[in-house]
Amino acid sequence: MHFIARTSVSGVVEREFQLGEITGVLWSPESHSEGAPLILLGHSGGMHKKAPNLVTMARHFATESGYRVAAIDAPGHGDRPRNAEDQRWAEALHVARAAGEPMDSIIADYNTSLAERAAPEWQATLDALQALPEIGPDAPIGYGGITLGTVIGMWLTAVEPRIQAATVEQRVFDALFDIARKITVPLTFQVAWNDAEIDRRPSFDLFEAFASEDKTLLATPGRHNQMSKTQPDFAAAFLRHHLGR
Amino acid sequence: MHFIARTSVSGVVEREFQLGEITGVLWSPESHSEGAPLILLGHSGGMHKKAPNLVTMARHFATESGYRVAAIDAPGHGDRPRNAEDQRWAEALHVARAAGEPMDSIIADYNTSLAERAAPEWQATLDALQALPEIGPDAPIGYGGITLGTVIGMWLTAVEPRIQAATVEQRVFDALFDIARKITVPLTFQVAWNDAEIDRRPSFDLFEAFASEDKTLLATPGRHNQMSKTQPDFAAAFLRHHLGR
Repeated sequence: MHFIARTSVSGVVEREFQLGEITGVLWSPESHSEGAPLILLGHSGGMHKKAPNLVTMARHFATESGYRVAAIDAPGHGDRPRNAEDQRWAEALHVARAAGEPMDSIIADYNTSLAERAAPEWQATLDALQALPEIGPDAPIGYGGITLGTVIGMWLTAVEPRIQAATVEQRVFDALFDIARKITVPLTFQVAWNDAEIDRRPSFDLFEAFASEDKTLLATPGRHNQMSKTQPDFAAAFLRHHLGR
Repeated sequence: MHFIARTSVSGVVEREFQLGEITGVLWSPESHSEGAPLILLGHSGGMHKKAPNLVTMARHFATESGYRVAAIDAPGHGDRPRNAEDQRWAEALHVARAAGEPMDSIIADYNTSLAERAAPEWQATLDALQALPEIGPDAPIGYGGITLGTVIGMWLTAVEPRIQAATVEQRVFDALFDIARKITVPLTFQVAWNDAEIDRRPSFDLFEAFASEDKTLLATPGRHNQMSKTQPDFAAAFLRHHLGR
């Protein structure tokens, strides 16, 4: 893991890193960060590790909870080249959206493929982050993600025992039901109450499918990209409850 | 308002008070409580101002958020005598429960009557609390309540502009829809996902009825009296977002 850039803004240090093909960023509070929990954040489809909503969330965790936060670009996103197959999926999504045709099966195939590749990348990133003396093997670890980041997070959480708590979002496609049944850690599950494109009822079924005993469905008015301003506070409170600090 | 008893446990001062016929309790953090927000807590039906779940919630707010918390006995509850009409309702509930008959209409009539009497009692209590130099007129004020306490809190919040944020619970009876349409402050709305006695779907309709722009439905597995352990943290995060500290 090589750190390639460092900036510091309002008490939060932001360091970009590279690990093989993986491009990422690590945010840390400037002070009192010894033993701090580590949150992994997953960006939405088409976005990248420094998407504005991700940066806002990362800074909130660092300043309000004293957490470290890491984000990596999904394969073919941000600073990473897109391969030919991903390019075909991205173009198929573009064509379907323009024609007003259903995108569900394209999203399912594309996101599944991305998640299958991203989960081991997160595991390698986690190995490298835990090898840093400032983090070490004992920092509690949580995951937070939106849309594509939710899919990747569910894939990762289902196989990676180091993830102790997760904040994820509504149903994206049906293959997630099998993944949800393998997830047992505490989680919050965000649902948009009034999204013209996303029916909330399948999300209710997905909420029921999670094997986690401790799970909370958080629903707010509006579309899935119009999260309530209280949402980062709920996520922070949930993670503080389970990861400490 | 006369204070009649004072104890102090683990950093929280608990003082019982009397205001005319109203019996109540005020919890305050021992230190750093200048300008602290004030939370009004409403107990469930058949319980009282010092019900265990209320005390837990009050201590959580005082120790974690530095808040003051007040609770009063509903009419005919706790230290207050029950009048003949309330006695008839309580007995009718007892008979219906024993016979396995529906209790909805009895609960609706009884709780509506209690809420109509309790809302002005809360307003008088608020006047007296704000007259205390340690609280004053500028402390931000929130409301939290369970079952009967939700009904009373909705009645109060609909008419009392001093309440700036509220945490309430699922639908108890249909008359609450008219009240919900008058409530505009930020709120959280707790729903039990798997309650054999309470269908969650009418609660979804009630969630939609609130006029509040900022509202969050929080659903957890189990019955309405089996709240998730994270629930007090969500309530505290929500109130901190809106009331400060």
